[in-house]
Amino acid sequence: MSAKDASKDSTATANTVGAPINQPPTAPLRWNGWGDPALAKQLPLALRTLLPLKLGRIQKPAPATAIDKVAVAASALSAEDRAAFATVIGETHLGVDNESRLRHAGGRSTPDLLRKRASAQDTPDGVLSPATHEEVLALLRAAAERDIAVIPFGGGTSVVGALDPERGSHRAVVAIDLTRMSGLISLDEVSGQARMFAGTTGPEAERLLGQHGYELGHFPQSFLYATLGGFAAARSSGQNSSGNGRFDDMVLGMRVATPSGEFTFGVSPGSSVGPDLTKLFLGSEGIFGIITELVLRVHPQPATRSFEAWSFPDFETGAEALRQVAQLRTRPTVIRLSDEAETSVSLAQHGKIGKALSKGCSAVTVFEGDPADVAARHAATAEILKRVGASSEGSAPAESWINGRFGAPYLRDSLLDHGVFCETLETATTWTGLHTLKERVTAALQDGFAEHGAKAMVLCHVSHIYPSGAALYFTIAAGIPGDDLEVWAKVKASVNDTIVANGGTLSHHHGVGRDHAPWIKQEIGEAGVRILRAVKAELDPSGIMNPGAVIG
Amino acid sequence: MSAKDASKDSTATANTVGAPINQPPTAPLRWNGWGDPALAKQLPLALRTLLPLKLGRIQKPAPATAIDKVAVAASALSAEDRAAFATVIGETHLGVDNESRLRHAGGRSTPDLLRKRASAQDTPDGVLSPATHEEVLALLRAAAERDIAVIPFGGGTSVVGALDPERGSHRAVVAIDLTRMSGLISLDEVSGQARMFAGTTGPEAERLLGQHGYELGHFPQSFLYATLGGFAAARSSGQNSSGNGRFDDMVLGMRVATPSGEFTFGVSPGSSVGPDLTKLFLGSEGIFGIITELVLRVHPQPATRSFEAWSFPDFETGAEALRQVAQLRTRPTVIRLSDEAETSVSLAQHGKIGKALSKGCSAVTVFEGDPADVAARHAATAEILKRVGASSEGSAPAESWINGRFGAPYLRDSLLDHGVFCETLETATTWTGLHTLKERVTAALQDGFAEHGAKAMVLCHVSHIYPSGAALYFTIAAGIPGDDLEVWAKVKASVNDTIVANGGTLSHHHGVGRDHAPWIKQEIGEAGVRILRAVKAELDPSGIMNPGAVIG
Repeated sequence: MSAKDASKDSTATANTVGAPINQPPTAPLRWNGWGDPALAKQLPLALRTLLPLKLGRIQKPAPATAIDKVAVAASALSAEDRAAFATVIGETHLGVDNESRLRHAGGRSTPDLLRKRASAQDTPDGVLSPATHEEVLALLRAAAERDIAVIPFGGGTSVVGALDPERGSHRAVVAIDLTRMSGLISLDEVSGQARMFAGTTGPEAERLLGQHGYELGHFPQSFLYATLGGFAAARSSGQNSSGNGRFDDMVLGMRVATPSGEFTFGVSPGSSVGPDLTKLFLGSEGIFGIITELVLRVHPQPATRSFEAWSFPDFETGAEALRQVAQLRTRPTVIRLSDEAETSVSLAQHGKIGKALSKGCSAVTVFEGDPADVAARHAATAEILKRVGASSEGSAPAESWINGRFGAPYLRDSLLDHGVFCETLETATTWTGLHTLKERVTAALQDGFAEHGAKAMVLCHVSHIYPSGAALYFTIAAGIPGDDLEVWAKVKASVNDTIVANGGTLSHHHGVGRDHAPWIKQEIGEAGVRILRAVKAELDPSGIMNPGAVIG
Repeated sequence: MSAKDASKDSTATANTVGAPINQPPTAPLRWNGWGDPALAKQLPLALRTLLPLKLGRIQKPAPATAIDKVAVAASALSAEDRAAFATVIGETHLGVDNESRLRHAGGRSTPDLLRKRASAQDTPDGVLSPATHEEVLALLRAAAERDIAVIPFGGGTSVVGALDPERGSHRAVVAIDLTRMSGLISLDEVSGQARMFAGTTGPEAERLLGQHGYELGHFPQSFLYATLGGFAAARSSGQNSSGNGRFDDMVLGMRVATPSGEFTFGVSPGSSVGPDLTKLFLGSEGIFGIITELVLRVHPQPATRSFEAWSFPDFETGAEALRQVAQLRTRPTVIRLSDEAETSVSLAQHGKIGKALSKGCSAVTVFEGDPADVAARHAATAEILKRVGASSEGSAPAESWINGRFGAPYLRDSLLDHGVFCETLETATTWTGLHTLKERVTAALQDGFAEHGAKAMVLCHVSHIYPSGAALYFTIAAGIPGDDLEVWAKVKASVNDTIVANGGTLSHHHGVGRDHAPWIKQEIGEAGVRILRAVKAELDPSGIMNPGAVIG
């Protein structure tokens, strides 16, 4: 392999489509909210007017506790434990102070954020930050020997409880923070593949590849903070997945450290040498080990980008149009369809949220690539959309969407500060089953909140399309008279029951974590869980890896 | 799910592109050769002239033993064993006669065919033909209880020893023939997915789907005889894979029977609910259990097909053109590039084999789909090929290739009858590594035969392309002075060593079987084998499933 060494000088190619990603973050993720505190959003006036009408009277919550005021239990790590870890990574990279521990306690689901307001909180007993694959291996061996549970920690953006500091039956629990393992190891431009450290964040990966004129093109909502290893471990799917595929599709190989040794997979792009074992680590969410390096499919940065927004008379017409786009493979890079409720609050339009009470359903399309290819795909997609009943709304709403696409989590913080419960959930099913699933999940949400005297807005969009089906992404805002966490736990349980009873998957791209684990048997069967347990017993015989996640 | 019931009347849509597949077989696969004995080919005159020039003096072998003259050991099945199996499937579907046993003894590699000429042969002790998933489950339980090994048997076309009647440490061995489990269970036209029994052969699957205007579009060399379950278990890849994907890509769900219970996987087209466990059975080659049903992605039969053949000055230029076609996603349905040696004997051209001593390298392209889409993809591909250095040879050679594409195995039978050793092997790697791998495998073959005083012709084509790499398919003809089996075993071992040492995969689409099993650790590591053994221990605790295959 004459793979190009990343350290070699390379003429950086300007990104000719302008910033393909929103600004990379200048500050670490807020410990108890989203993003850069300097970018925190005021709740738009239109929304402040709309919400009481839709959700009834809302009580402002008590202010969140400041990080230095939160009560944290003493670390359960002994002096010997600390010495064993420090031998591997050095004292500097072993965090046992309260702030480090609070910053590595859980992810960014709404329940996580509500818990992070409390005056006393659970945390891991320490935070270990290795710099190499070998250090990860050594830390896992030490943790197994010392009966200490391990929570692999990338960007901290899990919304399914995959990062809860759960020690299970073990003596203590540590988070292994992977963000020091960042960088491009090698780029093979001829084959279009890059080897990267798994702790590289989304923006850093695009920056490093962009210096060579390449991109990965994976843009989930968590993009600005999440890591490549997290994308792989949780089977992420990005907003450009119609064009670039799911993260699963981008992984050509990987290196994994487990308590019982290391694994390297991925020789050629196609193989029939037994089952594809990379697929067993995609979606494993740290229960088998830690992904330390990934070989990823990359492609040249697109030369052109074109946008168009569309309006449909109703969701059924829009969904039929998206089905035809998927099955006839016209290959938009992005295509999303908001339902009537989401369209009416313009949730998908940056800067217009809550303003225009539009009728019907809106959709956005984006096409990236070489000019001729972009033009042909755009024309083919437009032809189908129009034939099925869409009217063009021009490019502006689609450009507005792409400029604001990473802003939604800031809005949630503002809503929570105002006492509005706000959360998202997502599923996927076949085209045949799509409308029934959407209706029943919506009903489960509305009925669930109503049972507890809460009014809710339930918005939905089709976020990802496949020839055989699509993903439904729900956004919920509710005014809950009572305990948000308690009510949401009951509503969410009813939604999960509804999803599995109606042919949906428990999660299309958020993962299982601990939040969905009680339902996994209903999706993959007791038999499927047996397989995962057998693999775990082989790779993690002492059961220290992310206890409670995925298989409970 | 309102999936359409296959039993419902449906207006059959004529296949507007003419026969998309060559004629379905009217006779079962020859027991000791390929296909329908009535279609056996005479060796073309041009080849009979060419071969002695290239391969030296060739000795005709002794004639093969007739099936009723082969000595077969008495079946090791006891009366109790037979009764236990007959209780499940009925006496009629339990074959213990010599002919049934010989017809289920091994696959169709050249070593298989050479062994099938002998006067005494190994066979399974019986052949069981279940009709339902429940019968398969019951048979596996009975076999496990009675310490009898099981070889899952579909079309019998394995070329890697996956069907050897190996009993391992068990008391006896039976083949489970799955071809009675044939049919379309349901077709969901809206979602483009079909549920089918795993014992359905390629042509039968296309016939059943064709009645509704749909196709699977998976055409490996084994298509006429092989089964859907075999395609899945061996991770097959077809000649149309550039357009339709590998068989892996078509599998949306499956049902599996194992000695320790049954498994059902596949809810939605995209999911992040743990690892995708369907991927663990794709490539499992019967070592965990038997795939009984598959949910497959299907698409409307193409309305148009267009053809074009191309000539390149040399293989390097042709490979560079194919790389660009793959990376710029111009999506030909089929694209294949023969190297200079293969081009010179016109192996890819039906009816011209051995005739034209063409210069340079030839390639064929085929495009299927809607007329406008086909025209656009054909034009985009042609533009790249011409830009990189190809000259068009018109459509005739590509049409000739498609018409003759299932005929090659007949030619092998004729060569073996003349005493010419003939075999194929294949691998894949990155574009960066392609030329070195091709050179070294070619050298390993030439040098290996030369060491045993044999002259060989080594022909190669690029059979499958991906954005990051391609598959190399080698055809070998050799005049071996001495024992063909013995010499080939040594040459093949040296080729396997060469492949793993040069970044190739041991097999791109034939699988592991028993022939590649001794090398699997070199590809997936001791660690990868540990994972497969752990899964096997859970699903097949008594180790009766296909002993010796994949993990040895």
